[in-house]
Amino acid sequence: MEKNVQLDASGQDAEVMAQAPPNTRLVLALKKITLDRISLEIEMHKKIFQTELEYQQRLKEFDDKRRMIVAGDYIPTDDECKYQYADPEEPVVETNEKGIPKFWSTIFSNLDILSDMVQPHDQEAISLITDIRCVLLDNPMGYRLEFEFSENKYFSNKVLTKEYYFADTFDPEDPLNYDSLYVNRCKGCKIDWKSPQMNLTEKKVAKKMKHRSSNQVKTIEKVEKCDSFFNFFQPPEEKIEDADNDTKELLASDFDIGETFRLNVVPRGIIYYTGEGIEDEYDDFDDADFDGDFDESDFDEDDDDDEEEDDDDEDLEGDDGVKPKSSSHKQNKKSLKAKGKK
Amino acid sequence: MEKNVQLDASGQDAEVMAQAPPNTRLVLALKKITLDRISLEIEMHKKIFQTELEYQQRLKEFDDKRRMIVAGDYIPTDDECKYQYADPEEPVVETNEKGIPKFWSTIFSNLDILSDMVQPHDQEAISLITDIRCVLLDNPMGYRLEFEFSENKYFSNKVLTKEYYFADTFDPEDPLNYDSLYVNRCKGCKIDWKSPQMNLTEKKVAKKMKHRSSNQVKTIEKVEKCDSFFNFFQPPEEKIEDADNDTKELLASDFDIGETFRLNVVPRGIIYYTGEGIEDEYDDFDDADFDGDFDESDFDEDDDDDEEEDDDDEDLEGDDGVKPKSSSHKQNKKSLKAKGKK
Repeated sequence: MEKNVQLDASGQDAEVMAQAPPNTRLVLALKKITLDRISLEIEMHKKIFQTELEYQQRLKEFDDKRRMIVAGDYIPTDDECKYQYADPEEPVVETNEKGIPKFWSTIFSNLDILSDMVQPHDQEAISLITDIRCVLLDNPMGYRLEFEFSENKYFSNKVLTKEYYFADTFDPEDPLNYDSLYVNRCKGCKIDWKSPQMNLTEKKVAKKMKHRSSNQVKTIEKVEKCDSFFNFFQPPEEKIEDADNDTKELLASDFDIGETFRLNVVPRGIIYYTGEGIEDEYDDFDDADFDGDFDESDFDEDDDDDEEEDDDDEDLEGDDGVKPKSSSHKQNKKSLKAKGKK
Repeated sequence: MEKNVQLDASGQDAEVMAQAPPNTRLVLALKKITLDRISLEIEMHKKIFQTELEYQQRLKEFDDKRRMIVAGDYIPTDDECKYQYADPEEPVVETNEKGIPKFWSTIFSNLDILSDMVQPHDQEAISLITDIRCVLLDNPMGYRLEFEFSENKYFSNKVLTKEYYFADTFDPEDPLNYDSLYVNRCKGCKIDWKSPQMNLTEKKVAKKMKHRSSNQVKTIEKVEKCDSFFNFFQPPEEKIEDADNDTKELLASDFDIGETFRLNVVPRGIIYYTGEGIEDEYDDFDDADFDGDFDESDFDEDDDDDEEEDDDDEDLEGDDGVKPKSSSHKQNKKSLKAKGKK
């Protein structure tokens, strides 16, 4: 980060390219103080996590009720269906379906980050997910995702699990950018495939082998790993900071998926099922001047001569892609991207 | 959000356009359950905020020490300058400067979201900021930003303040997207300008008036509001949900700026001063194939025929713009955008 623009107290046009401020004793002292602050913030974030643990049982009751309704094991009363913010224009559709059979698979297909993992040969198994839960873990701190399946021909596990653990300090490669507790490793589970043929993470490949001297061709079958959502349960289990670059990248994506389940899919499944929680990635362009060419008025002019302007609004442009850091209390309603536009 | 892609248990190519799931009794029941869950989450977030309040005094001590060092009122010892993660390659520069005079104004100029508010005629006053603090407020819940200035010719206030208050419930316009406590109103402060001429938020405009019958032209002076950073202290004070659309937009930008101060600038000022906390908005393109035209390999092909592929990595693409929702514990190190490239 070499570029800086210095504000100039003289009021001259100040946009100049400057070197980053020098690495002085005082700069180093302020970095040290910030790192000490971060150590205390980590203590606070751990305490905040304890509060989340305290609430977990009560929050889980809502998720349990959802599971029963989705399975058709509980039929809500009329009162329990009176959602006060329902769109009065939208008619309530009557169905005779038991529960919501495609609840979880619809969420998978609605979210790019999930559907990108699902291969065609996984889809039947995905459609058999009956619940996705998140259990916070105290020691080591982290969380466990639980994927419950109905009885199926692929594996005998009733529940597949994936655990994520938080680092217990800042990232030594980027200490001052510490933000909040973050995941640095995960753990899969053993899938008890009913037979090698049912193993969705492997495929048989026919290989032709030519005998060196006789030139006879023989076809042999080899078992190879293949792409599958179910590889999600066999991740590399090393800490991300100890991994090589390819594994780092893989783990970073995997941790994002874990966070998507924990923070979005589990607590707000219904809005990803209906699509209401999904932001169309092209929505931002809807109002833009997209006639194919640009003219000067399409660009933000850097006009210092504001003496003749006549607006009394503040110059708060905002919405320019700057996002405050994450926090437990930020106003930053992010939505996940929709599937279906590439 | 009309588009959905249904996963198809038969394993057929599943990318079809479907209607959003119907508004059934069960969907409404799940929405109602989710809203009940959110009410409990809000209770939890309020409790978490109490924890933040408990830690505020101890965290403030680090910020106080920074203020003294920046002002030159405290000279750190050699030990206090031993930042353990300093780049050993980068020499420590000796200066005789007292403190770091341009600390805050450099941060303003480094961050688009802040520098966009600063007009040329504001720059001298901005350069006189000696501290920016954040004080969490208990009742009503929120926070106060305090901007401390050295003695100046513009106004007699030593400290200008801006307060932000959290909504005490979810957003009734988007209830199920509730995420965390969020700001819904703010409050400015009165600036005691030393004279009308020194008021940076007003300008004198010469207006020519022609007498209707005599055609005599007379020039009169009129005072008009003008763009200025200091309008930040005179925001609309209504709740965002009660505001008209223009005001809503203005307030949304203003709240983003408040959050940037609270979550980034105050706790991590040093990394925005040096530029290390700033992400270049064009960095993402650095490694892209930018030779001016595209070929098919530039695009993600939707290849269902993976039988011949030979990679044993999971298909975790990740990094595709999907962000998990905010939380106190998410691994999502966002940085602010750099100033200087338009």
